[in-house]
Amino acid sequence: MKLVRAVIREDKLVDVLDALVRAGYTGATVFRDVGGMGGESGVVKIRGRTYEALLPRAVVEVAVEDGEVEKVVKTIMEAARTGHVGDGRIFVLGVEGAWRIRSGEKLG
Amino acid sequence: MKLVRAVIREDKLVDVLDALVRAGYTGATVFRDVGGMGGESGVVKIRGRTYEALLPRAVVEVAVEDGEVEKVVKTIMEAARTGHVGDGRIFVLGVEGAWRIRSGEKLG
Amino acid sequence: MKLVRAVIREDKLVDVLDALVRAGYTGATVFRDVGGMGGESGVVKIRGRTYEALLPRAVVEVAVEDGEVEKVVKTIMEAARTGHVGDGRIFVLGVEGAWRIRSGEKLG
Ligand SMILES: Nc1ncnc2c1ncn2[C@@H]1O[C@H](COP(=O)(O)OP(=O)(O)OP(=O)(O)O)[C@@H](O)[C@H]1O
Ligand SMILES: Nc1ncnc2c1ncn2[C@@H]1O[C@H](COP(=O)(O)OP(=O)(O)OP(=O)(O)O)[C@@H](O)[C@H]1O
Ligand SMILES: Nc1ncnc2c1ncn2[C@@H]1O[C@H](COP(=O)(O)OP(=O)(O)OP(=O)(O)O)[C@@H](O)[C@H]1O
Ligand SMILES: [Mg+2]
Ligand SMILES: [Mg+2]
Ligand SMILES: [Mg+2]
Repeated sequence: MKLVRAVIREDKLVDVLDALVRAGYTGATVFRDVGGMGGESGVVKIRGRTYEALLPRAVVEVAVEDGEVEKVVKTIMEAARTGHVGDGRIFVLGVEGAWRIRSGEKLG
Repeated sequence: MKLVRAVIREDKLVDVLDALVRAGYTGATVFRDVGGMGGESGVVKIRGRTYEALLPRAVVEVAVEDGEVEKVVKTIMEAARTGHVGDGRIFVLGVEGAWRIRSGEKLG
Repeated sequence: MKLVRAVIREDKLVDVLDALVRAGYTGATVFRDVGGMGGESGVVKIRGRTYEALLPRAVVEVAVEDGEVEKVVKTIMEAARTGHVGDGRIFVLGVEGAWRIRSGEKLG
């Protein structure tokens, strides 16, 4: 099992979730109150003092079987893309174990 | 070292932290402002437009030695469970290095 | 590629981002609304009831090439340190794939 983690524009969240559901992925976890620096922004200096100026982001995590990673990544990329700098990045992490809390069942 | 990441009902957070402390795990990081879709909810359509309707979640992360994973997972599952759909999931990730910032000491 | 994840004091965020940029790392993702327990705090009992009393934290994530991990960790540790208990921890996770959403380009 893999964890696909996408850092996207905050205002693309609904489009991305909608695309995931249409592609058959109905489970996801979303982190809000996330900020990003990716060249466009980050820290700024005003009269010698440094301030934070991060762009609003959302992080969407989808755990899937190994064979689904490519399709999930493509689904998210197409839904999250505007074509302008700052569209975000996707990172894939390995999952060594997974459980459903309700049943205690091991999922992966 | 492993990172045990639990996506739980927001209103189970205190119970889960309390159970962790009682079981001897006094270190944890909690992400709030998290939303989840897991079949029960996610995106909804109203008159052709799509809206986000995520359930409120908290994510609790506990880094532990490999041999502790099973006990931590069990501790969290028992404290987070209501028995109704939507109780959450737990994912375990591998940790390749860990440091204590105060001392600079490498922990794993 | 590795994901360096630092759990720091919330009020050290600007210093850490500033140090990263000075060291040449201009990409990072920041999670706010994070709470931490690390011995100093966590759950408290008042008249038999348990309450959450987490310290305010920020989580800073920086994805870097394997050979950069040590330098990034050192950069963050120096900027985030006060020398008092509770300065935070850093965890390094393996990244199995990475993509730039704008271009669809695979980065790692
Ligand atoms: N090295 C990194 N580590 C962690 N997060 C990153 C990194 N680089 C970018 N990000 C996250 O991704 C978000 C978007 O990055 P961005 O789209 O600017 O990537 P990019 O590679 O600079 O692409 P572009 O050229 O389109 O701007 C950032 O706001 C940040 O949250
Ligand atoms: N594939 C997934 N990837 C990432 N997060 C997920 C995934 N599936 C579920 N989650 C997260 O776990 C939360 C709870 O999931 P949920 O308890 O509904 O799991 P479930 O397997 O559908 O179990 P149940 O049958 O009890 O509902 C979701 O709100 C979401 O945050
Ligand atoms: N085992 C752990 N798993 C996940 N997060 C942790 C763990 N231990 C600590 N943390 C996170 O790191 C933050 C700071 O931890 P802290 O600095 O207290 O670490 P420490 O090892 O107790 O060092 P110190 O002795 O300096 O207090 C905590 O508030 C929590 O968010
Ligand atoms: Mg950029
Ligand atoms: Mg469900
Ligand atoms: Mg401590």
